[in-house]
Amino acid sequence: MKSNLLEQGLLLAEPERGQPLSESFAMKLAIQEAYRGLGAVSPNPLVGCVILDSKDRFLAKGFHARYGGAHAEVNALVGLSTEELQGAKIFVTLEPCAHEGKTPSCAKNLANLPLREVIYGLVDPNPLVAGQGLEILTAAKIIVRPFVEFEIELKQLCEHFLWNMLQQKVFVSAKVATSLDGQLGLQTGESQWITDETSRAVAHVLRAAHDGLLIGSNTLRIDNPSLNIRSDYFPKRKNKIIILDSDALCLAEACKYKFVQFHAPEDVYFAISDQISSPPNPWGAQVIFLPVKNQNPASGLDLNILLAMLWRVGIRSLLVEGGAHTLSSFINEMIVQRLYLFQAPMILGAKSGKPWSEQVSISSMSDRTSLKDPQFLHLAQDQLITGILN
Amino acid sequence: MKSNLLEQGLLLAEPERGQPLSESFAMKLAIQEAYRGLGAVSPNPLVGCVILDSKDRFLAKGFHARYGGAHAEVNALVGLSTEELQGAKIFVTLEPCAHEGKTPSCAKNLANLPLREVIYGLVDPNPLVAGQGLEILTAAKIIVRPFVEFEIELKQLCEHFLWNMLQQKVFVSAKVATSLDGQLGLQTGESQWITDETSRAVAHVLRAAHDGLLIGSNTLRIDNPSLNIRSDYFPKRKNKIIILDSDALCLAEACKYKFVQFHAPEDVYFAISDQISSPPNPWGAQVIFLPVKNQNPASGLDLNILLAMLWRVGIRSLLVEGGAHTLSSFINEMIVQRLYLFQAPMILGAKSGKPWSEQVSISSMSDRTSLKDPQFLHLAQDQLITGILN
Repeated sequence: MKSNLLEQGLLLAEPERGQPLSESFAMKLAIQEAYRGLGAVSPNPLVGCVILDSKDRFLAKGFHARYGGAHAEVNALVGLSTEELQGAKIFVTLEPCAHEGKTPSCAKNLANLPLREVIYGLVDPNPLVAGQGLEILTAAKIIVRPFVEFEIELKQLCEHFLWNMLQQKVFVSAKVATSLDGQLGLQTGESQWITDETSRAVAHVLRAAHDGLLIGSNTLRIDNPSLNIRSDYFPKRKNKIIILDSDALCLAEACKYKFVQFHAPEDVYFAISDQISSPPNPWGAQVIFLPVKNQNPASGLDLNILLAMLWRVGIRSLLVEGGAHTLSSFINEMIVQRLYLFQAPMILGAKSGKPWSEQVSISSMSDRTSLKDPQFLHLAQDQLITGILN
Repeated sequence: MKSNLLEQGLLLAEPERGQPLSESFAMKLAIQEAYRGLGAVSPNPLVGCVILDSKDRFLAKGFHARYGGAHAEVNALVGLSTEELQGAKIFVTLEPCAHEGKTPSCAKNLANLPLREVIYGLVDPNPLVAGQGLEILTAAKIIVRPFVEFEIELKQLCEHFLWNMLQQKVFVSAKVATSLDGQLGLQTGESQWITDETSRAVAHVLRAAHDGLLIGSNTLRIDNPSLNIRSDYFPKRKNKIIILDSDALCLAEACKYKFVQFHAPEDVYFAISDQISSPPNPWGAQVIFLPVKNQNPASGLDLNILLAMLWRVGIRSLLVEGGAHTLSSFINEMIVQRLYLFQAPMILGAKSGKPWSEQVSISSMSDRTSLKDPQFLHLAQDQLITGILN
């Protein structure tokens, strides 16, 4: 996938050391660098850093590579001498941290260097940082300024973290794979592999980019998915799995499904109705008891309470994969922040198909849900449409 | 729209006379030039021509501008002297014509010039031409060779004409404007203006590019559309209008609809059931009597016979605009050659919405209809997906 993006001009070519870079290129490169931490830094944000010398020539880059590990700035600075940093400019996608957490304060670290400028993408909304990193740098007579381009890209880069910090809630993405007429598959249940190999490879990157992966019990029964991350880029990454199973029937027979081969029981949460007192749980999965909305089991589990409980167990981002009923429930509740819609160039027919927005209903056009900042990416055969829903 | 395409790099900048051009650029420019005849040449094909001098420098270009008018080659040659054409190369999107029709034979015309080469895009499938144009040129010692790139673009340029010639049938396109979940609007009938202004401007270009425009009687009743071409590029162009109206009820009250202000009765065809003997027709529209398939009025008029009758009255290309039932009928019959799908970045919900493929049904995934050679064009807010269906 990476080489493909490079060919499409979406991935920047690595600059040579000493090569003059524009400020735009430097910040774009810092964003790209940040994405290298995908799947490894949560609940921290993805952060990238690029350093130019006093003559705007490329010196180094770095990224936050794993939770608890060194921050992007520190990784970029590795091996650079004080002489090289004389009058240097540091581009960083997020304000350098002010506080000592798992690692020392980056702002204090940078304040000791002979830098000319620090150019940052976003102010860190973390109340332990929020502007304080910038103050430390200013006090050290380093020019500090916000970068004026790429606001959408910079926010998207750390949207999980921004949402977490500002809302104290799980960031929810919905992943849908449909035909051109909005069908997930056929009513007969025939559905797998609508989209092509490239789309599926990207879908596994999406799994890696989220802490948790959620499906409904119908999808478990019909598709019997592995629910693991199959990607060369994330050989060891595992997700938390959440299964909506209001009647606890799948929980009782968890062992017969394929996913148990790939996940430990402590990483799998079954969300069931709180009307069920002692559900059989032979595999020993985690169980979340939830109220059923409107006392009507058909209308489903209370998803807002589910998200609050997932937040409490440390899940900061959730990928909802389906099926139609589950996707519709999340969209109706307006708790999906980002949509990832893979579209295969085919028609399945609304009469024979299963629409992904099956249970979604609006009363007038003015209530429609619009996709903000939509992006359209052409994959091999399919396309991926993504944007902000709420 | 044109300047917008130019900004996106889709429209080629006009070369200066004397500017050296690559063969690829020359043929691309010829294709672009050909499109300038859109809406004015049917039943002839769109044809473009570019002439380079003996040193591959741009000399001139031309296109077939209106039915009965000069061919692209003749228009490109206007004002060029024999000296300038010494050793020149002519790029033409379609084989030069061999026969004398409304205008003299282009191949004979070119054969009298001191050209070095004629490079053509496609062989003309018209049995009056088919390879004969090439023979005339070869006999005149002009090198003749097919162009090896842009096969898809060249075929798309004159796809109506190719289909007409090879199949002796009307070329049918379907135009759909939907949400991301495949809904045309709401079940309440609220539907207009899902897509944005740019999409609607492109949709009017599509109307201009087809001889006829077809809708079902429900769409007439609910939307009461003008059915005219509102585009600065085609100020005078008018379509033939075809309305599927099996029970002839709309025919009886045609005068109450808005479209009668924009069309003469002789340009509007109402397709009705042949079970109705003397339908009231106060406006005096044209009437096409069609058998009802399976003796079941609900399953609709026989569309294959409709197309044969439209062919007979000289309609060579038809744009089917809706609604859901009409689109579905055409897709089920597998008589749509090209799909134009405008997608607005919004969700309307399958529970409240009206899906465009409402009546389309397949029995298994292997029967799905795939879009061949799909193209994805980003308009202002929406996107246009187009490709070949059958």
